[in-house]
Parts: sequence; structure tokens; C-alpha cells
Amino acid sequence: MAGNSFGNIFKLTTFGESHGPAIGGVIDGCPAGLSINFEAINAEMKRRMPGQSAIVTQRKEADEVKFLSGIFEGITTGMPIGFLIENTDQKSKDYAHIKNIYRPSHADYTFDQKYGIRDYRGGGRSSARETACRVVAGAIAKQLLGNLKITAYVSSVGKMELGKHYSEIDFSEIEKNPVRCPDAAMASEMEDFIKDIRKKGDTVGGTVTCVIQNVPKGLGEPVFDKLHAELGKAMLSINAVKGFEYGSGFEGTKMKGSEHNDSFNIDGSTKTNHSGGIQGGISNGETIYFKVAFKPVATIMQKQETIDSKGNPAIAEGKGRHDPCVVPRAVPIVEAMAALVLADFWLLNKLSKL
Amino acid sequence: MAGNSFGNIFKLTTFGESHGPAIGGVIDGCPAGLSINFEAINAEMKRRMPGQSAIVTQRKEADEVKFLSGIFEGITTGMPIGFLIENTDQKSKDYAHIKNIYRPSHADYTFDQKYGIRDYRGGGRSSARETACRVVAGAIAKQLLGNLKITAYVSSVGKMELGKHYSEIDFSEIEKNPVRCPDAAMASEMEDFIKDIRKKGDTVGGTVTCVIQNVPKGLGEPVFDKLHAELGKAMLSINAVKGFEYGSGFEGTKMKGSEHNDSFNIDGSTKTNHSGGIQGGISNGETIYFKVAFKPVATIMQKQETIDSKGNPAIAEGKGRHDPCVVPRAVPIVEAMAALVLADFWLLNKLSKL
Amino acid sequence: MAGNSFGNIFKLTTFGESHGPAIGGVIDGCPAGLSINFEAINAEMKRRMPGQSAIVTQRKEADEVKFLSGIFEGITTGMPIGFLIENTDQKSKDYAHIKNIYRPSHADYTFDQKYGIRDYRGGGRSSARETACRVVAGAIAKQLLGNLKITAYVSSVGKMELGKHYSEIDFSEIEKNPVRCPDAAMASEMEDFIKDIRKKGDTVGGTVTCVIQNVPKGLGEPVFDKLHAELGKAMLSINAVKGFEYGSGFEGTKMKGSEHNDSFNIDGSTKTNHSGGIQGGISNGETIYFKVAFKPVATIMQKQETIDSKGNPAIAEGKGRHDPCVVPRAVPIVEAMAALVLADFWLLNKLSKL
Amino acid sequence: MAGNSFGNIFKLTTFGESHGPAIGGVIDGCPAGLSINFEAINAEMKRRMPGQSAIVTQRKEADEVKFLSGIFEGITTGMPIGFLIENTDQKSKDYAHIKNIYRPSHADYTFDQKYGIRDYRGGGRSSARETACRVVAGAIAKQLLGNLKITAYVSSVGKMELGKHYSEIDFSEIEKNPVRCPDAAMASEMEDFIKDIRKKGDTVGGTVTCVIQNVPKGLGEPVFDKLHAELGKAMLSINAVKGFEYGSGFEGTKMKGSEHNDSFNIDGSTKTNHSGGIQGGISNGETIYFKVAFKPVATIMQKQETIDSKGNPAIAEGKGRHDPCVVPRAVPIVEAMAALVLADFWLLNKLSKL
Repeated sequence: MAGNSFGNIFKLTTFGESHGPAIGGVIDGCPAGLSINFEAINAEMKRRMPGQSAIVTQRKEADEVKFLSGIFEGITTGMPIGFLIENTDQKSKDYAHIKNIYRPSHADYTFDQKYGIRDYRGGGRSSARETACRVVAGAIAKQLLGNLKITAYVSSVGKMELGKHYSEIDFSEIEKNPVRCPDAAMASEMEDFIKDIRKKGDTVGGTVTCVIQNVPKGLGEPVFDKLHAELGKAMLSINAVKGFEYGSGFEGTKMKGSEHNDSFNIDGSTKTNHSGGIQGGISNGETIYFKVAFKPVATIMQKQETIDSKGNPAIAEGKGRHDPCVVPRAVPIVEAMAALVLADFWLLNKLSKL
Repeated sequence: MAGNSFGNIFKLTTFGESHGPAIGGVIDGCPAGLSINFEAINAEMKRRMPGQSAIVTQRKEADEVKFLSGIFEGITTGMPIGFLIENTDQKSKDYAHIKNIYRPSHADYTFDQKYGIRDYRGGGRSSARETACRVVAGAIAKQLLGNLKITAYVSSVGKMELGKHYSEIDFSEIEKNPVRCPDAAMASEMEDFIKDIRKKGDTVGGTVTCVIQNVPKGLGEPVFDKLHAELGKAMLSINAVKGFEYGSGFEGTKMKGSEHNDSFNIDGSTKTNHSGGIQGGISNGETIYFKVAFKPVATIMQKQETIDSKGNPAIAEGKGRHDPCVVPRAVPIVEAMAALVLADFWLLNKLSKL
Repeated sequence: MAGNSFGNIFKLTTFGESHGPAIGGVIDGCPAGLSINFEAINAEMKRRMPGQSAIVTQRKEADEVKFLSGIFEGITTGMPIGFLIENTDQKSKDYAHIKNIYRPSHADYTFDQKYGIRDYRGGGRSSARETACRVVAGAIAKQLLGNLKITAYVSSVGKMELGKHYSEIDFSEIEKNPVRCPDAAMASEMEDFIKDIRKKGDTVGGTVTCVIQNVPKGLGEPVFDKLHAELGKAMLSINAVKGFEYGSGFEGTKMKGSEHNDSFNIDGSTKTNHSGGIQGGISNGETIYFKVAFKPVATIMQKQETIDSKGNPAIAEGKGRHDPCVVPRAVPIVEAMAALVLADFWLLNKLSKL
Repeated sequence: MAGNSFGNIFKLTTFGESHGPAIGGVIDGCPAGLSINFEAINAEMKRRMPGQSAIVTQRKEADEVKFLSGIFEGITTGMPIGFLIENTDQKSKDYAHIKNIYRPSHADYTFDQKYGIRDYRGGGRSSARETACRVVAGAIAKQLLGNLKITAYVSSVGKMELGKHYSEIDFSEIEKNPVRCPDAAMASEMEDFIKDIRKKGDTVGGTVTCVIQNVPKGLGEPVFDKLHAELGKAMLSINAVKGFEYGSGFEGTKMKGSEHNDSFNIDGSTKTNHSGGIQGGISNGETIYFKVAFKPVATIMQKQETIDSKGNPAIAEGKGRHDPCVVPRAVPIVEAMAALVLADFWLLNKLSKL
């Protein structure tokens, strides 16, 4: 109810501020009997970790996950999985200067309006640090989903677009460059652009595309909890996200029904996939694909005129260590949230029929 | 859990198939003491109703709402509000021909895969007829929200785009034409285009933009139930929706932080509104605006090659009475879903602080 | 949230007041593929129906259930099951005299305090009429549970106690007398006592015992949603219930561990059953049994000094047609609520392990 | 869904096994602006702590609570409150002997049946150690409830009953003896009895009565979430509880309506209180009182014949350090669970009317 839980059956609850002693979470509803691959979890954490390349924030969080319950001798017991990630590189003093200042396009103002109080250090709860917990839970959800494969990549940075259909992508290229764009030449250009933006103390937005293969048929719970509706909510709940489209998306609105309809093959598969693997809110077994829009990071290393909590003029100036562009680090977060949605529906779908 | 409820506090549960005896719903959590304006509810129903103009389906549903509980002498009692809409124009025989056929890009195939059974008459539960219940509940939610104003309009049909910023719109123009596009000239072109598409037995997609004014600060429950995340889910749960963006949306990804950030005025309002009235998942008091993408209707009056439930080749051909373009009738549905989200968060927000 | 839904997966939402046009409900989460036995539903309704014997209220409700959705050609489709029961014998004028009067030990006063308004006719929403919807849903839940058998009976009326262990009961005796006490001699005494109480314009309480056989192992979700905790909540949610105990219950508190512990047989069954079929909140396959306490009905046909809504002294005098003792008609309601709890946990348990 | 959360608005989720590294929880939905009294929390923890007297288990857990989030400079921020209690006195080797043995009337057998795996060390998740987290959350809930006062005490041990009406109790006596029975003479007898039982390696049950004063009117959400129904569920979710009754309870079933009805005074209070402060599921402002039945602890220091997980005969013999009677330590747990229910309804009630 208060917004810190996600999912119905496979349910994640998170807690923690960026500059408190730790962040963490509880996964309730993971079935018993799942062998946990801890290395796979750590690998996902490293993909999200600060300091992984020259184009991301240079904070140095170890991001080591401690599991406290629900796993016994490497296997889930059906009990809630509690976990903790300590905040080791909190430099709270970096934030003393913004204690009473509302940074433009941040959550400072709205948190104060809603709660009458906020932990101003590093954005507190509104910091994207919280997404580390999502990556932990998503990594477990991925393991539950077995053969199903979730792959995200950067499809644009600013005005530079990859411009390839998901079916043309060589997924093995994604992790070969720090941008996570599966086209070496384009990735190189993007990298240069991000470095340039950073030098100017500015930031830029971008998009992440996600592709989900080997999807079982039947996932999604219409009429309100359609598969794409939950995927949309999941993505829009990630910091800085401004839009979501799946399948033919916004471009599909320009098409005619006779062009857009996906004809069936004899085996139930479809000849085209404008539906994006989802029909009537339920997966049809085709590849799911969707795109997520991320705005430019609000923290810039430039002076901005603003106000303080008493309504006096003030100057906000970014300090600390921030990402000039979030999309490279957002890739594993998008995958994690997709995994959470799919794991939840995969379990729920076991109850659809006798 | 099974997908037929929406909301946490102000909670709508719907039931009913397009060709059963009736559809209906229950609103649980509407506070006691609200005077219900029944005419306002009926007015919303008429905006959604089939047969309202030459460019929508010519089915003839009276769409009369019967309230069964929760309202006593015109005032809500805090008890659940049960309501019913009888299906008066069910021509089930129109659908005998599709009993065993999977219509392309419909929910026929996925429902059969998931449930092993479906009420094939008129799409059954997957029909957009179900959205009539959303409009009933949304109309009550609007009344709860008092001064807050939700206005949606058609911003594109196919490739024809209105191309105006929300702040340039004269809202009084919207209901003056059957397309619900607030520009007479553009609306006229769109109308002609839809008529032409219908003649060809084809369909076309479009977009609806929604603008919400006089929004209290503090609505939204981060981190997962951000205001825009719930709005996104709400919109994506409407039949035929393929995408959602708010504020600067997908275009905003191309901007720099220094351009995108919304500077504060002394009174806490902002000079620009790329944030779309939401920061950190919480309303900041500025105007909320978002755009929703609708695909072309899947039912076309043309022969399409497809398969039947046994995997044999078959021909699907649209019969019955269908919309050539859903966006004109989608306008009140978008508003209704927005009202449900806002009413829910408006109530929840009363619990944010002591 | 607002209290009109019960269950997690197999979820019932009810609506309706005793003197509105109809009461009804929605069952969401019933799996597709269940053949519905409508006669079995009607049979349950008749067990709860007013006017069935000389010792219950003489109101004449037909209590005919109309199913509106979710069942197609006699089989559940996985869609929400909406249903309606019209109120045919509403004599609202019977209640004009209590419009502003607070009847002692009724919900009149608390409803006014909480909601600031109430539908005073016949208790409105607080009337036990609402339990008819529970019986409908419970009857479907029973069908989902197949071989599992739920049997309730009257174990005391006032100070007259059946005094038999559940294992000594001949279940075939229960429906042979209007009291639903499975001992002909005791039932006859109870019946005479209730008739006498009625003549005096008074009422009396009693208890219902429920026995559940053929229970699968594994039902219940500790730590908070233990099987007996949900059964307890379910029973306590029935009008007039004041207490719940299962297994050894309150008497068990007087025992020593060495007496109370249930030793295992080689096959995992237990030699005694003080645990009442539940250990650690999870069914162990033994017979579940519990007892439910019902207070005497608050509406008596005697003059009682009370106050009106303005705090003035007033006289409350029962009119209308009321039960002198609720337990005979409570028997099917207890069974229905037990069925709802078990169906919900039976479905949830499918997700406990891989 | 999976049973590890309690509450709707003020929602506690717990995790952790008795012999893992730590137990803990997350409280979501506590309003911002509450000054936390940490000493009061610690005081509650000490009332539940092992080793506090000669008649409870002699385990030595420090039970120090570490708060990780949601409280900033001593005040709640509206963010989730994460907390941790490390397990410092885990002697896992005490449990090696029961690894494959099903202890009678424990949860060993049912956990294995349901999950196919269990953390056998000290009962794992089914251990009452988990209730420490409930006491933490309950202590915060108490602070939210301000003037409302929750007081529990031991009302019987085995066959020894206090036999006083709640209105006769001198609450200041409760904490003066290790039994927590507010009658010095009776407490002394009970203490001797428990010591004697312990010497014999046996255990005994008892009851706890809880009294809640200064209750606001309007708490509770009928029809399913009646105040007493949630209190009942809350109590029944505590380890070893077998029954719950409120107000006149099981004895009330023997009364006539004319005796049982609570007449109103002019000010809306009642002359008697058989209703136990709750009418129609909603608090009426009178004192709430209820009684909770606890069975004798299943772990006894005697040899018991049982079976192992392969169905072979085996001997279970209690080792480790256990309570001979749980009711003295259950007193703060009962209070904590009552506080959680009341805090939840207190918040929800703010939304009942406009």
C-alpha cells in the first residue's frame, strides 16, 4: 500500500536510504526447492555497480549481498528471503549543502510536500541506490524462470539511435562495451558523446530495449493485470523513466489493422510480431519486446537557480559523484524488473485452470 | 490477484462478458458522505456509448447503470457500491462463425492457451465492453476528486497528428466533433479518414492525450507505486493500448539535463514542466499530462487467413459491428482510469504523515 | 481494504444491503474448468434460507441466485463469477421506527459513528442477509475442493450442550431436525427451548462445531496466515460470533505437554488429535475441527430503554421477523466460510515448492 | 500472500529463522512525523526476552534491535522501516539430533510435507523466535496509537485461573512478578507450579487476557475485516495459540438476549459491556477485552516415541533451552499483535468518511 512492495505471489519488499547503514529487502513467495546460484546474483550486481567504467558514477560501493534467511544449504526453503547490502561509501557531507535546497527536477520538493520530512543525504529513499535491491530479487527471479531469457540493451543515447529491429541484434555484443549498445561503432560514438557531456557537467537521456525469449504461453492476468500493463508499471517505477511501449508501440498507432494484425502459422506461432508477444494481456509464446525511455539525470555539475525550503532563492550545484547518462547501468535494472513481473505471472498462471 | 480488481483503497472489481446477461462491478472503499450526481455518470456513459456517431460501432447498447448498494438517498454510505449494466443488444449468433477460429491479433488464442476454455461470443471477457464498468467507477472517482480536472482528447489518428502542446488546447473544442480532437479542421480531416478506412473494411490506430489540472501535491507512493507508474499501468490495461509516456516522454530522452530540468519559481511552481507534474513519483502540483498509444482495432471486415483451434487453416472475416478507430470512444475511458488512480492516491495520501 | 473482500487467490467480494434491490458478489480467482453443480448451490442456500422451520425467522426470501458471468455452458472460464440475489421480501416500513434509534448491541451506533450515515432499513449492510452471498461462494469452493468434506452442526444452544467428541457424531443425523444437532433427543429439547424463548420475545446463543475430513497436507501459510488463524478470522467475521477455538482449544490450556502432544504412527498420521489437524499453521492430514461461539441475537421482542441519534432517551422494540437463535441457520454459513479458507489455501499451496 | 506480512496500511513483513544469522522485518506504511521512543521499544523487547526469570527459557539472546531505514534524526520519514535482530546465541549443534526426526506436535512434519525441505535448526522459521520482530513493530504501533492503552496479563496457568473480571484488575501488579499475573498470591502459586512442571521435564498451557482502553470509536472494517476478526487472526497467528474469545465469549452463548444486550447511557456509552467494546465489527469506544488460549509447549524434556522422515520409529528427546510455559513471555507478544491491528484500523478509519 505504501509503495515499497512489488508483485503478488513472488513479492519483493525493499527498504533503505542511500546514506543509511544499509539497504535491503525481503522476497516472499519464492517456492521452496530452488538451488540458488550466488555467482549469477553477484554478476548481475556488478553490471549495475557504480565505478564499472569511465562513463558511470565513480562512487565505490562494494554492493555485497548478505542473505539472512530463506535459503538453507543453498536451496530456497519457501520461507521469506531477507537480504542486506551495506552502504560502504556514504559521504553524507557531500549533501550538507542541499539540506534545505530543492534541486530542480529531483524529488526533494515533492517528498517535503508529502511527508513533511526527508532524509536529504543523497536523495535518501528517492535515490536510485534502491534499485540494487531490485537487481538482487530479479537475479533470483531469473533463476526461477529457467529457460526463459531476458536481454536488455541500450537502443539510444540522446539523439543517437541504434535503429535496429530486435531480431537483428547480436546479443553477444551487448556486454562488450561500457554503453551496453550491441553495435560496436554506435557504442563507441555514444561513449564519446557521454564523455563529452560529462566534461560539460551535463547529462543526457536515452532508451533501453528489452527482449524476452522462450516465454511460456499464458502469462498475464486480464483485465487489469495484463502482462504488458505490469511490465509497464515495473519499468515506470524505475528512477528517471518517462515512457514505455511494447510491440509496435507508438509507431503502431499509424498502421492499419490489415497491416498490423499478426497472422498465425499452423503451429500457433505468428508470421509477424507487432503484438510484441502479448495478445489480450496474455503471452502468446512469441518474443516479447519493449522499449523504456529514460530522461537525462537531474543532477548536473552546473549552477542552477532554485529555491530553499522557505521559498528563498538559492543556488543548486551538483557535487558528489553522479552518472552523466543512466542507460548503461539501467540495463540490468530493466532486466531485473522484467524478471520480477514474469516470475510473478509464471507462478500465478499455475492457478489458471484445473 | 486474478486481475479483475484495480486500486488499493478506492478499489474497483469488475465482472461480465460482452454477451452474457450483464456486466457490472463493485467499488469498495469510496468514503461515506459523497453526494452522487447520477446525471454526471450517465453523461460519461454516453461519451463511451456505441452508436453515438457515424464513426463508431453501431451496436445499440442502452448502457443504463443500475446501482444496487452503497448509496442511500443519493449519498454514499461507505459500503461497497454494486452496480450492473445489462447487455441488451447481444447478437450472439454474430459470433457462431468464430467459435473455433482464432482471429489474428485478438485474445482468442491466448485465452484458450491459458484457460482451456473461452466464452467466444463477442470476445467474451476480452471485449472492450468491460470498459463500461470502468467509466461508471471513474465517474464516481471524478466526483470524489472535486476541483481536480481530468481532460482527455484525441491527439492523433493514424499519421495525422494534432501537433499542439497541451497548454495550447482549447478544451471546449473537444466534444464539438465526433473525433474528440480539439481542432475543428484537423478533426474534420480525421473524421473523413476514419470514414474512408471503414469503407475499406479496415481500421486505424491513434493516440489520446490526457491533461490533469488542479492536482494536489503529494499524490503517489514511491518507490514502486509511483504516480506515473500506476497511471501507466492503468492506461496499458485498456484494450488496444501499446504505449504510455508522460511529461517529456520519449522525446525527453534526447534532451540534456540542463535543458530538461524544471526550475522553481519562488512559490514552488516550476517555470517549465518537462516533469509532467510528477517528480520522484509524486505530484508536485503542476499540470499532469501523458499520451496513450492505441493500435488499430484487430477486427477488420476483410478475409484473413488464420487457423482454428485444431490447427487447421481457416478464414476469419469480421462480422458484427465494430469500431474502425477506437480513440474517439477511448477518451472517456482514459479519463476514467486516470480518475481511479488519482482517487486511490488522494485517499492514500491522507495517511502519509501524522 | 474496506473490508468487503475475503481471500487471496479464491477471492470473494460482496455487496448489498438487506433492504436494497439486491445483494450479490464477485468470485475472482476460481480456476477455469470446474463443472458447476447448480443444484448443490441451491441446496446450500435452502439450508440457510429464512422460513425453513418454525424456529427460524419467518421472512420469505426466495434467495434465488442469478449467475451473471464466469460460467459458460456450465463450466467456469477463469473469469470473475458475478452473481446476484434479489431482495424480494423487503418490508422497509418495518424499520421506520428505528430510523433514529440505536438498538442495544446492534451496529446502529457504531455505523453512525464511523460513517456518519447508515442505511437503517433492516440493519442495512450489517444485517446477516449478507451471509447469503458467502453461502453461494462457499458452495462453489466446496466443489473445487472435491473429496474434502466439511460438516458443521449445532453443538450447544444456551446451556444445553451436545457434549460429544467430533469422532462420536453420526453426521447423517444433522439434517434430520430443524436445530441441526446430530442427536435426536438433544435436538428435540433444544427445539422446545428455542420455541419457548421465542414466545417470551427473547433470544439465546449457542455454538456450532465444524469438522473437516480428507484434508490434503500442506494447507496454510505461516507465519501470519496460519490455517487456523484464517479459519478463526473467517468465523469471527460472521455476524454474532464471539469466539473460536480449534483442536483442544481452551480446554487444552489445562493440559501438560506430555498429555497434549500427538504421537505419530508410522504412516505419519497421529494417535491422538489435540492439534486439530493443524501443526505450525499447516494441515497435517488429520481431521480439522473447531468450535464457534454465537451470542444471543440482539433483536428481542421486548421493550428496551435506549437513546436516539441525538442522545435523547428512547424505546427500542423489535418488530419484523427475526431468529430467536441463529445457530441452526449458521451451520451452512460456517461451512461456507471454511470452504472459502480451504479453497484459497488449496490453490496457494500449489505454489509452495517447485 | 505467502504469509509473512501482516496488516493493510501499517504493514509488517518479517523474515528470519531462529538459527540463521539474523531475524528482521520491514514496517511499511508508518506515517511520517512520529518521534520514536527507542527506550520504549527496548523495554518491550526485554519483556519478551529469554532468560528474564527462572521460569522461562535460559537462552541468552541480547535481542538488540538495529534500525536500518525509515527513521531520520529520531523521526519517521514515511519510508519503510527496516530492522534487524542478530541471533547471537545460536547453538545449532543442539539440533543435529532432530535433523531427520519429527517432533510430536511440532511443525517439523507439516513443513516437510508442504515445502519438501526445512531448516531444522531450532524449529527454523516455525520457532517463536520470529515473534521478536512482532514486538518491535508492535512497540512502534503503540507509539502511533498515543493515548490508547493496551494491557495484557496472564489469566490462567494450567487449571489455575485468576477468575477476575477485567474491571477488577490492578494493572500495576502485572509486572511485579515473573508470571505476569496481576494477583500476587495467585502468581506465586502459578510460579511454583511452573517450576515443578519444569523439574519434571514437562510443560503446561495457559491463557492471556488483553484489555484495551481509550479506544477511538470507528475502528474495524466490516463485513469481513471486523475488528474482532482481525484481532482473532492476529492472536491465532502467534505460536501455540488454540483459541480466542472477546467480550462475553463462549460464556455469552449461554445467555439470553435480554441479559446480554448492552443498554446505552445518554452519552452513548453502555451500562454493561458484553459486547467487549465492539459492535458490528466496529469499536464503540468502550473497553475492548479478549482472552487467548495457549497450549502446553510441545518440546518436553522427556523421551517420546516418534518417527523419522523415512517413516522409521525414532525417539525424540528435548534438548536445548525451552519454556515450560509460554504465557509469561506471550504477554508482550499479545499486546504487540493487538497494537498492529489497532494501528492499521486507526489509519484506515481516517478514510471512512469525507
